[in-house]
Amino acid sequence: MNRFLVRSVMQGLINGRSYSGSSISNGHMYRAAIVGRDVWLSGQQNGMPFGGFEWRRMMNSAPAWTEKVPLEKEEKKENPATGEKKGTEMMVSSYWGISRPKITKEDGTDWPWNCFMPWETYKADLSIDLKKHHVPKNFVDKFAYRTVKILRIPADLFFQRRYGCRAMMLETVAAVPGMVGGMLLHLRSLRKFQHSGGWIKALLEEAENERMHLMTMVELVKPKWYERLLVLTVQGVFFNAFFVLYVLSPKLAHRIVGYLEEEAIHSYTEYLKDIESGAIENVPAPAIAIDYWRLPKDANLKDVITVIRADEAHHRDVNHFASDIHFQGKELREAPAPLGYH
Amino acid sequence: MNRFLVRSVMQGLINGRSYSGSSISNGHMYRAAIVGRDVWLSGQQNGMPFGGFEWRRMMNSAPAWTEKVPLEKEEKKENPATGEKKGTEMMVSSYWGISRPKITKEDGTDWPWNCFMPWETYKADLSIDLKKHHVPKNFVDKFAYRTVKILRIPADLFFQRRYGCRAMMLETVAAVPGMVGGMLLHLRSLRKFQHSGGWIKALLEEAENERMHLMTMVELVKPKWYERLLVLTVQGVFFNAFFVLYVLSPKLAHRIVGYLEEEAIHSYTEYLKDIESGAIENVPAPAIAIDYWRLPKDANLKDVITVIRADEAHHRDVNHFASDIHFQGKELREAPAPLGYH
Repeated sequence: MNRFLVRSVMQGLINGRSYSGSSISNGHMYRAAIVGRDVWLSGQQNGMPFGGFEWRRMMNSAPAWTEKVPLEKEEKKENPATGEKKGTEMMVSSYWGISRPKITKEDGTDWPWNCFMPWETYKADLSIDLKKHHVPKNFVDKFAYRTVKILRIPADLFFQRRYGCRAMMLETVAAVPGMVGGMLLHLRSLRKFQHSGGWIKALLEEAENERMHLMTMVELVKPKWYERLLVLTVQGVFFNAFFVLYVLSPKLAHRIVGYLEEEAIHSYTEYLKDIESGAIENVPAPAIAIDYWRLPKDANLKDVITVIRADEAHHRDVNHFASDIHFQGKELREAPAPLGYH
Repeated sequence: MNRFLVRSVMQGLINGRSYSGSSISNGHMYRAAIVGRDVWLSGQQNGMPFGGFEWRRMMNSAPAWTEKVPLEKEEKKENPATGEKKGTEMMVSSYWGISRPKITKEDGTDWPWNCFMPWETYKADLSIDLKKHHVPKNFVDKFAYRTVKILRIPADLFFQRRYGCRAMMLETVAAVPGMVGGMLLHLRSLRKFQHSGGWIKALLEEAENERMHLMTMVELVKPKWYERLLVLTVQGVFFNAFFVLYVLSPKLAHRIVGYLEEEAIHSYTEYLKDIESGAIENVPAPAIAIDYWRLPKDANLKDVITVIRADEAHHRDVNHFASDIHFQGKELREAPAPLGYH
């Protein structure tokens, strides 16, 4: 149970207010942290790398810029917006009483990331079948399959075997469909006064996960100026194209993404071959990857590419699954949303 | 600590795979559920309404439609995409091995919602200062303030004191800015190869929360056909207008949303007055509201409007805060993101 305890303690840090948040300012949270620590110690056996997170008072950890927030001084005395529940340390952060709880790793060092929190980290499911393939059955399938195969040609020509660069560039595109799909489902839910069935969140999770791939790759490969320029253009074109496509046919849109993910799995497999053959140096894994996928401290590039490939396989499943639902003439909200499936 | 335990157990249900998910199929999860139950019992004192969630085998609970998923029969024998970790029950769901764990309330009944999960529920912070106001200081502030005041006129004329209808209609608009902002920050993060500082998620959380307001209001007020038509038009105009505005000046965009939220607080306060005066009947709270805000079973309309108003006050803080950051010539990612602040 320890890993559950741990996540809960970490969740409690930010959402404490939502429960009976007084626990944060009156010391309960320290007990929480202690539980977390105990749990972490007993949790090491089954590879739970987090858990020792502790709530530290913010008083001397408010970011420098907040000192400049207007009206802040007036608020020093009392700031109801924070709610006592968040602890007096919040008062110094800003007039609007918004701040981030200080979160530390079990070794006492600060949690270094704002773009993801400890409880969003996970161990990739490497047991997933990488060979799975959706056999094109009808015109839409075949059209999607051909489109992806054609899109692959310029990528092969441009990148050849520079897989690091290729992965970095392609992740800037891979994070778009989930966001577009999630947004359109959100707007639809609002227009139709209908529930989303959890699919909005599921697609946004995919976009988030792909963005984390990019944040990892960029630590390994620094983009050159013309690559940055290319990303601008490609995003401009792809975002709008996919937006229109998803409006016209989510069925086709999800199928295309499914096939794109199949290609991504192939590219990452080639990447791994070059690492194994020594053509690409198996450098140490960047810190962000070690924290996000809970990799061992001595993890290397090969480990990182392996977990990213597993993620892509999960996205393949989700998007082919979504397309299947549409093929049955159903709406996504009628099927279980693959929450946390990545 | 029990409420932390509980959230963790619930989280474990969906994310089990990410940890050492084998616990789900080999019976550990039942222990988890038991802990959850114990916790719930001992947790009642400090108002923790959830915790008795139990993992139930999916074998006989796979949605009917999944029976039609192509290739499903072939997959009955073994489906690596699910990972043994997810338990054999997943195999029947679809070729892609995606399904939703069956989640039940502590009273043994099914968790009735797909659009939000037990661990996304919270108790609203009613201690927040509803009177807080950002005094317009410069041209941008004044422009934002005037714009909102002008936008208010047609709303007042159209709805007069039909606050239920008003709230429902306005929530269809209120859920747009968070999504637009989150999406644009996401695309920016991809283009610039930069971290988001957690603001993408924070803004998407706001959009999600506003959508839940709508899902609640729609249970109380059934939209008429011309209101649905109006929503279509308004969303079409507002989405594009806000999109362009956020691209041109996020500073102004967030300020406008901040003032819109101040108006929302005012409207909900008027709504409450009419409920207290008896002009509007204080009907029982819809089930979705009781589950989402963890309200008592006998909660009524007044309780619901009170927590929604508290949410709007939190969004007011977040957006004025975001605008303040831009006024300091900083980017949002440089400031702590208000995760879980609603």
